[in-house]
Amino acid sequence: MNESDFNAAALDEIIHGKLRLGIMAYLSAVEQASFTELKQKTDASDGNLSVHMRKLEEAGYVSVEKRFAGRRPLTTLKLTAAGRKAWIAYLDELRRLTGG
Amino acid sequence: MNESDFNAAALDEIIHGKLRLGIMAYLSAVEQASFTELKQKTDASDGNLSVHMRKLEEAGYVSVEKRFAGRRPLTTLKLTAAGRKAWIAYLDELRRLTGG
Repeated sequence: MNESDFNAAALDEIIHGKLRLGIMAYLSAVEQASFTELKQKTDASDGNLSVHMRKLEEAGYVSVEKRFAGRRPLTTLKLTAAGRKAWIAYLDELRRLTGG
Repeated sequence: MNESDFNAAALDEIIHGKLRLGIMAYLSAVEQASFTELKQKTDASDGNLSVHMRKLEEAGYVSVEKRFAGRRPLTTLKLTAAGRKAWIAYLDELRRLTGG
């Protein structure tokens, strides 16, 4: 055990935010998800989910596709390769910290 | 799987803060720790560790004892029963969320 084994600084702040953690966890479990589906799964409001979806997109962790399904706009999210890598690194770091 | 299984709101905000997470993780692993020891383990500054130690104390998760060891002040921290319970609940919630 090193001197500074409980330094949590390495936990990715982008993922550590609670709503973003929920989004990342869900997207890591499914191939892709619609905005509406993610809203239900995370119990988030439209506004809040939009904000944090954008943060994840800006970090390059999530790709967002907007199109129309008939007349209805459909927003689809999925993890990018970088997002999946960051997710795994986050889980590893969390396990290291919590001794799990 | 429920509709809102990826709602991270139940994650204890007191524990989720990165430095506090490091403190809780370390204290859960040892019987008690001095301020100096915790500083080394978490790589925190005096000021930052003081602030977050106080937050954990105010939440009732950590007890803080200050005394003198000879001429030197010695601050000792340990998890309270409530702190240990909160820590376990936090880990459970984290595992539920991350599917671990």
